[in-house]
Amino acid sequence: MFESARLPQNMDKKTFKKLEPQLREALLAAQLPVVEKQPFSTMILVDGLDGAGKGEAVARLYGWMDARHLVCNAYGELMDEARLRPPLWRYWRDLPPKGETAIVFGSWYQTVLRDWIYKKIDEDAFDKALTRIRRFEEMLANEDVLILKFWFYLPKKEQEERLKHIEKKHAARHVLADWAALKHHKKASEAGEKIILETSKGYAPWFVIPSQDPEYRDAALAQTVANAMKLKLEDGEPHSIAAPPVVGGLKRETAVDTIDLTEKLEKSEYEELRDKYQKKLSDLSDMKSLSKTGVVLVFQGNDAAGKGGAIRRVIRPLDPRIYKVHPISAPTDEEKARPYLWRFWRRVPAKGHFAIFDRSWYERVLVERVEGYAGHDDWLRAYNEINEFEQELTDFGYIVCKFWLAISEDEQLRRFKAREDTAYKQHKITDDDWRNRLKWDQYAIAAGDMIDRTSTHYAPWTLVSSEDKRHARIKVLKTICDRLEEKL
Amino acid sequence: MFESARLPQNMDKKTFKKLEPQLREALLAAQLPVVEKQPFSTMILVDGLDGAGKGEAVARLYGWMDARHLVCNAYGELMDEARLRPPLWRYWRDLPPKGETAIVFGSWYQTVLRDWIYKKIDEDAFDKALTRIRRFEEMLANEDVLILKFWFYLPKKEQEERLKHIEKKHAARHVLADWAALKHHKKASEAGEKIILETSKGYAPWFVIPSQDPEYRDAALAQTVANAMKLKLEDGEPHSIAAPPVVGGLKRETAVDTIDLTEKLEKSEYEELRDKYQKKLSDLSDMKSLSKTGVVLVFQGNDAAGKGGAIRRVIRPLDPRIYKVHPISAPTDEEKARPYLWRFWRRVPAKGHFAIFDRSWYERVLVERVEGYAGHDDWLRAYNEINEFEQELTDFGYIVCKFWLAISEDEQLRRFKAREDTAYKQHKITDDDWRNRLKWDQYAIAAGDMIDRTSTHYAPWTLVSSEDKRHARIKVLKTICDRLEEKL
Repeated sequence: MFESARLPQNMDKKTFKKLEPQLREALLAAQLPVVEKQPFSTMILVDGLDGAGKGEAVARLYGWMDARHLVCNAYGELMDEARLRPPLWRYWRDLPPKGETAIVFGSWYQTVLRDWIYKKIDEDAFDKALTRIRRFEEMLANEDVLILKFWFYLPKKEQEERLKHIEKKHAARHVLADWAALKHHKKASEAGEKIILETSKGYAPWFVIPSQDPEYRDAALAQTVANAMKLKLEDGEPHSIAAPPVVGGLKRETAVDTIDLTEKLEKSEYEELRDKYQKKLSDLSDMKSLSKTGVVLVFQGNDAAGKGGAIRRVIRPLDPRIYKVHPISAPTDEEKARPYLWRFWRRVPAKGHFAIFDRSWYERVLVERVEGYAGHDDWLRAYNEINEFEQELTDFGYIVCKFWLAISEDEQLRRFKAREDTAYKQHKITDDDWRNRLKWDQYAIAAGDMIDRTSTHYAPWTLVSSEDKRHARIKVLKTICDRLEEKL
Repeated sequence: MFESARLPQNMDKKTFKKLEPQLREALLAAQLPVVEKQPFSTMILVDGLDGAGKGEAVARLYGWMDARHLVCNAYGELMDEARLRPPLWRYWRDLPPKGETAIVFGSWYQTVLRDWIYKKIDEDAFDKALTRIRRFEEMLANEDVLILKFWFYLPKKEQEERLKHIEKKHAARHVLADWAALKHHKKASEAGEKIILETSKGYAPWFVIPSQDPEYRDAALAQTVANAMKLKLEDGEPHSIAAPPVVGGLKRETAVDTIDLTEKLEKSEYEELRDKYQKKLSDLSDMKSLSKTGVVLVFQGNDAAGKGGAIRRVIRPLDPRIYKVHPISAPTDEEKARPYLWRFWRRVPAKGHFAIFDRSWYERVLVERVEGYAGHDDWLRAYNEINEFEQELTDFGYIVCKFWLAISEDEQLRRFKAREDTAYKQHKITDDDWRNRLKWDQYAIAAGDMIDRTSTHYAPWTLVSSEDKRHARIKVLKTICDRLEEKL
């Protein structure tokens, strides 16, 4: 979930200075018509990890908007009157009227998050609390409240450094609580992943704000608020659980951008490792306990990244009776007449079997998104639907491995040309491939969003540099062996 | 929830015979354009209590529709291939293509219902399963599947009689299972209430079918299917969790129609009981344990039914420092600028206090519905929102008592006239009252729907005949005392 938020996303101070007046202008251009026409009220929820600089970011936002129509409500421990009333009461009490904006620190997510981290509730109770929250927000949205939810994220190491820095400057009381938070970084991040996946809706979207760089962080917050209010004014719905792809002209880096394409394997080393892992895979697939699980392998990647070759190395050691390879191209008539996941459900393997997908349901958020075959709302809801589909599989005990095979733009060109020049490879290159290549950047954004939104703890993505095919094949084989070994 | 389904909605065979060709025509008029244009597929889920005649009803529906484009899928124990795959797989496998209709016996609700009845899962797990189902259905609906869900309901006594009757005629195996079901009537009905409240959505509505009379039952099913398919064709959404208000010209009886208006109390008896219960209420309100709960009393009813008089008898024995009466009329500007429940949340009592509402949030589904102040979708979603609001209160430990005070149309006229004739009562009668009176039937349907949809186990409605005010006042006082006694 936080793949791209983990990256440092930097913005130098000069860029920020230049951007600042534009951001202020955009915020006021969005806020003032709302103040005047009063079509809705806005609640900006500020959540996420302690030490990420939520206070600083809001202070800046506060300074940039029209403060006469903006309140900041902070909720900590329950006080006096609130203690004597149901938990939601204090949020209701402070609900802003139409036209106004409220910034909410310590939102209704705080209690459930804290209870979860300190193990006061189990997973079912956690889910139930999120269901209630979802309904509460749905109701507010139906009653003309725009709910924008921000999750400020810091990697653990950066959180630690920030806290050391703060400690030097501030009162100890403040920092003590934050140090406690650091201890729970992993649990809080996992819970955050779940909260965001389960409660990000068009009417109440989450935005993950990478918070390592204060300038980037504050610009991303301001830009998102301005865009969302403007969209809502025009009757649109802001949909996102990621930061905006571009902030102040700076393209946000995604997980796909970070793949180290220089990794290589020599032939002799490759052959040795290949034999080792194929032998291992053969042994693992022969284990009796395999009959209690099923294995779903998903291969996606840049065109010509070598999906087919990697798959061939995986199936070589397998008994043909226990696997099926499903190359996914255009849907049939029968498939088109049903919900898009039907074509994959019908290929779900029985226990004891492997299903290997050469392209998959992820085409929904890649080619269908980029080429416009799926509408905006359709591919957006697909992230959640895919996560739920994979959860059905893993809850039933299946192993789901997903591989993203990446190559550089240059390497792709080289391979395309080689395919055209080699008679027995010509069928592998089509006009479509050349057309897709022209949209390299759009596909990269789609792939980055996909990994941000569908890398779950139960079905994580494995990013594989395929610039060197040998490296890629070994990484794929090893990952499958590791996952099987862990489970069997 | 099943208030109106508990009533013996009868349809004589002659009416049914006359109606049958109309129903067939309506069904085909809805089905054939769907077959031809293939805008969506339809799934008709048949659930509810065993012995309610689900099989018979479907057999009739089957005969009336075009069977070439209709399949019936029955799911019992998991077989062969399905056992080896995730639970939802078999439903996916059989998903009808666009244009076609599938009748589903043993839907995805069966497992969760059975697990709940046999205590294999706790409440949190039950809720979680419903959340998943809701998402699954939301996804199907987004992918052009119309999901119609029918809950066939029988009161326990009728279920028993029906089973005896079946036993004489059918193979024993069949009946044995049904007798087991009878034992769980209460638990199944409660679970049904919960399932229906939590998973009835515009895109996948539940319809409760009163199944005592086979002709009424089958006519209601057919009419609902025809209407819903027609509505969906016109891009509308069928919204309901009740049977249609009118089936084949027969107005469905609601709980409100069954209130026995002849109940009476003599003056002396009244005074004795009044003193007794007021003394009791005074004692109860003085108990230390009251500080751990709050009391919310809701008074609704026909105009001039005597809400004010009943409230005065309730507050007389109470310490003025611990209660507030909230007469609800038009919302203020501040209230209009916020979600409609805000005006009630701000009046939620602190622990240890009573809040008494003379009219309430229920105006949303009464006057606002009938007079069109709230849009169709807005008052429809209000049922769930209200249930959730009251659940927040009762989960926090509060007691919620809701009274519907009923009088006859004649008695209302008498009281209206008396008010006009009595100087100090003239302020109590307005032109609005006379106007509302003209819509008596519409208000009756709205009140019946309200009671069907918002009578929950945590916040039940008490129906009170107010034709005789003395009777009404005692019933109100006694109910409050009983509820307090139970809790304190």
